[in-house]
Amino acid sequence: MREIAYVNGEFGPLEEARVSVNDRGFTFGDGVYEVLRAFAGRPFLATEHWARLGRSLAELRIEGVDLAALARLVDQALALSELPDALVYIQITRGAAPRRHDWDPETVVPTVVITVRRWQRPSAELREHGVSAICVPELRWGRVDIKSLNLLPNVLAKQLAREQGAFEAIFVTADEIVTEGTSSAILAMREGTLLYHPPGPTTLPSITVQLVLELAASAGIPARPATLRRAELLAADEVLLLNTSAEVVGIVQVDGQTIHDGRVGPATSRLIAAYDRAIASLLQAPGRGPT
Amino acid sequence: MREIAYVNGEFGPLEEARVSVNDRGFTFGDGVYEVLRAFAGRPFLATEHWARLGRSLAELRIEGVDLAALARLVDQALALSELPDALVYIQITRGAAPRRHDWDPETVVPTVVITVRRWQRPSAELREHGVSAICVPELRWGRVDIKSLNLLPNVLAKQLAREQGAFEAIFVTADEIVTEGTSSAILAMREGTLLYHPPGPTTLPSITVQLVLELAASAGIPARPATLRRAELLAADEVLLLNTSAEVVGIVQVDGQTIHDGRVGPATSRLIAAYDRAIASLLQAPGRGPT
Repeated sequence: MREIAYVNGEFGPLEEARVSVNDRGFTFGDGVYEVLRAFAGRPFLATEHWARLGRSLAELRIEGVDLAALARLVDQALALSELPDALVYIQITRGAAPRRHDWDPETVVPTVVITVRRWQRPSAELREHGVSAICVPELRWGRVDIKSLNLLPNVLAKQLAREQGAFEAIFVTADEIVTEGTSSAILAMREGTLLYHPPGPTTLPSITVQLVLELAASAGIPARPATLRRAELLAADEVLLLNTSAEVVGIVQVDGQTIHDGRVGPATSRLIAAYDRAIASLLQAPGRGPT
Repeated sequence: MREIAYVNGEFGPLEEARVSVNDRGFTFGDGVYEVLRAFAGRPFLATEHWARLGRSLAELRIEGVDLAALARLVDQALALSELPDALVYIQITRGAAPRRHDWDPETVVPTVVITVRRWQRPSAELREHGVSAICVPELRWGRVDIKSLNLLPNVLAKQLAREQGAFEAIFVTADEIVTEGTSSAILAMREGTLLYHPPGPTTLPSITVQLVLELAASAGIPARPATLRRAELLAADEVLLLNTSAEVVGIVQVDGQTIHDGRVGPATSRLIAAYDRAIASLLQAPGRGPT
């Protein structure tokens, strides 16, 4: 088992993979990405990730990427790595070209990078006791619905969280509206209803949220879109953090203030269990090949 | 004469220079840059560029970069390239590390890239007849005073300008305030006074503006900071575009509307001539080594 990388036609060890210094991903952050989990060597929710990747590419007008071929490359990469439990990272940039802001659609060819790394599911500790978060000013650009490489505000905010012993930093606008975490969606339970940020340019369309909303519906937990202010988040019965790598985690403290009784709430626990079952059903699906 | 690149200790041909796919510049745009002009093999306004680079690094908390050593590397790169007229590009990222948003200050080592490319001064045509620009919605992040690699909105706007036959795209906020171009500062002459955007987080501290303000003072052209709305820009006597590579260029048309009489104005022409003299005095400075 080994961590590997695919770069523009070649597979090799992750630590040796290189791209041109002229790659527009390196000089401008001119590209998009996806992060998938693989269980038993099979990508989880692959169809949804390919759809979102296709949308991000279209929004940035990066052309000429064959998503079906990419899906096959991911399967190949997973097979080569021999890692059953892995994190698959896919990054597509506009390509390498002498540095100038605009590009020539006739000559530029997208750079495709796939990496496969070892990954573990969230620890029992994390799921049982939850995590803490801090709030930071929202100062990202106006199109964070595109999963782009322009992640500097996310990086700086996450580091601040780390330094304050928190798991995540949550962006809050000047109007006190909670948008999302640096790499997660933030949901709340209030009066028995699961509240999620309405779709739009200020948040990423989250695949984990989409799945959890289906799981909530099956579990009889009502849900609706709602714009939450920071004070409403702090006053919630439960706060949930969702993303591909952490799955579903309870947030029990925000900015040093305890959420409800400081314990992972019942709806969160039910959704964690439902998420487990969704993964288990993938693992048990007989004969289902990699998708 | 050849275009060359320096990457983390090694000089080589630009087209062969590579960085790790794990470089945080590639995955997050987590880095900063500077662009310098060199004339007769000597960097122009080097002290100012090093100061700004130092500030950008400090703002992103990228540590351990020796700016004096970097200045010597730029001199070496220019000498190796044997290019008298060159564009020097310097990019420093937080370094390569397994992908996660936060970083470990103890282990991450900045990546240093220097490239030297052929460059020509703006053509006589450009300077005599000026250029056109379009306005686009400002949707960049809240800290564009940091010269970072998160340049996606700039890239998309510049491409739009290109497709509309314009030289530059100018960012205009929802409040109709003109901030700056995708890679330039935008100034205006109104009632005999040169107006420039006040310093702050919504524009880059421009080294070319700083020099041009000194040149304006010497030429007896009054100048003051002013927040310009789009309508005021359109009604200006002259509109000027300033940056390191284009130097000083007149904008004679914005969004298809002619500025004043559609010709490069007298103040712009005087400042272009003064900029020429500033470069000439560098070239004539006897015995002045590369700085």
